Amino acid sequence: MEAKPVTAGLVVIGNEILSGRTRDANTQFIGAELNDLGIRLAEVRVVADVCGAIVGAVEALRKEYDYVFVTGGLGPTHDDITARSIAKAFAVELVCDPEAHARLERHYGSERFNAARQRMAYIPEGAALIDNPVSAAPGFRIENVFVMAGIPRIMQAMFASVRHRLSGGAPLLSRTIGTDLGEGTLAAELGRVQEAFPDIQIGSYPSMGSGRSGVRIVLRSVSEDRLGAAVEAVRAMAARLGGQAEELDITG
Amino acid sequence: MEAKPVTAGLVVIGNEILSGRTRDANTQFIGAELNDLGIRLAEVRVVADVCGAIVGAVEALRKEYDYVFVTGGLGPTHDDITARSIAKAFAVELVCDPEAHARLERHYGSERFNAARQRMAYIPEGAALIDNPVSAAPGFRIENVFVMAGIPRIMQAMFASVRHRLSGGAPLLSRTIGTDLGEGTLAAELGRVQEAFPDIQIGSYPSMGSGRSGVRIVLRSVSEDRLGAAVEAVRAMAARLGGQAEELDITG
Repeated sequence: MEAKPVTAGLVVIGNEILSGRTRDANTQFIGAELNDLGIRLAEVRVVADVCGAIVGAVEALRKEYDYVFVTGGLGPTHDDITARSIAKAFAVELVCDPEAHARLERHYGSERFNAARQRMAYIPEGAALIDNPVSAAPGFRIENVFVMAGIPRIMQAMFASVRHRLSGGAPLLSRTIGTDLGEGTLAAELGRVQEAFPDIQIGSYPSMGSGRSGVRIVLRSVSEDRLGAAVEAVRAMAARLGGQAEELDITG
Repeated sequence: MEAKPVTAGLVVIGNEILSGRTRDANTQFIGAELNDLGIRLAEVRVVADVCGAIVGAVEALRKEYDYVFVTGGLGPTHDDITARSIAKAFAVELVCDPEAHARLERHYGSERFNAARQRMAYIPEGAALIDNPVSAAPGFRIENVFVMAGIPRIMQAMFASVRHRLSGGAPLLSRTIGTDLGEGTLAAELGRVQEAFPDIQIGSYPSMGSGRSGVRIVLRSVSEDRLGAAVEAVRAMAARLGGQAEELDITG
């Protein structure tokens, strides 16, 4: 049996995502990275640029999961309220971090380092900086909460700098079988495979729009051996039902 | 002043999105459609294919928002547990809907309409069907919760069939000004524009990676007049700061 998995939650802050103007890319990146680290992203909440909404989501997720990641709202403008909201969620003050201040001043030069940019040096008391190799303004970590920029390129650089601090369990391995059988045709038999392999996560995803219909069956487990046995059971099932079964080279 | 806005929450069900394998497309579509209808998508929760997680998210959001949309997990396989989970959230039985049963039987033909496919005719007691013009298996509505397929093409067709049932407020109009000023350069002045126009949502989005840096300023309001006045204030601000300001043709 699998040990209790290490879990994470993600809070994506952004009116632009909720209005449909921007399509979130951070969930996919963080989900895949955590998966590689053996950490299961269990829940994502997308919330508006509103202090109460951010506080509520962070408070709920940090109690529920081992790690919480937060993206967005770290810039210098009036709508960047993440640092303040996280401080509120932890009931601490927002304080100027001397190291962050020095990095930002070096990055902008003292003339361009105005009051708005100085705001980006403020982090919740007790938080540790997360490096931003792209544009200097740091993220921060407080307890189990990692706060990063919303812009994907900067977020990804920040994630790379904290990756080594994250302790996961065994990574969840996956294998994917593509079949030309309809989902309803294989459903009963696939349910029996799932019953025979309760330790394997088996998902079924109809592939539509790609010309002919069919199903991708995704199997996940921390055990390569058990995964192999379940894949064989799926192949045997497809053969019994008169369908094709082809392993697809898809990771994640 | 704006009347209390009509709000919505969205629950996206999908292990595949949490693992980073698939990038969610439904948030962007639903967010944009609701925005056009004058309904504000206020929160999205992405949860795993786990009954307790689905029940928890639906219970929380349906109390908080005027409408709740749910996508994913309506198929015939063992991992499709949405209908059962919604029934549980409303404390009602899952019952076979005769109309759904008839539609599915017509779609598949009696020979292919096996037990697994018959499962798709079960909806929570008291729910009303949502048409699926693509692949017959219906979604359903129960009270303020609209449950739709996860596959974007099917979800979009289902959404189109319920769109006329949704009552929004005045649609939130938006205008976007692109400027070559740095975010930190304009932050203080933009904050003053926001103070002068408390009824306008003003967001600032640095555009990186597109060659030269700059900021897109997005202004939103239900009032075209107020929006126009705020846009003029942003243009005047950019001119004072010695920057360009160009209206961009972006809707949503």
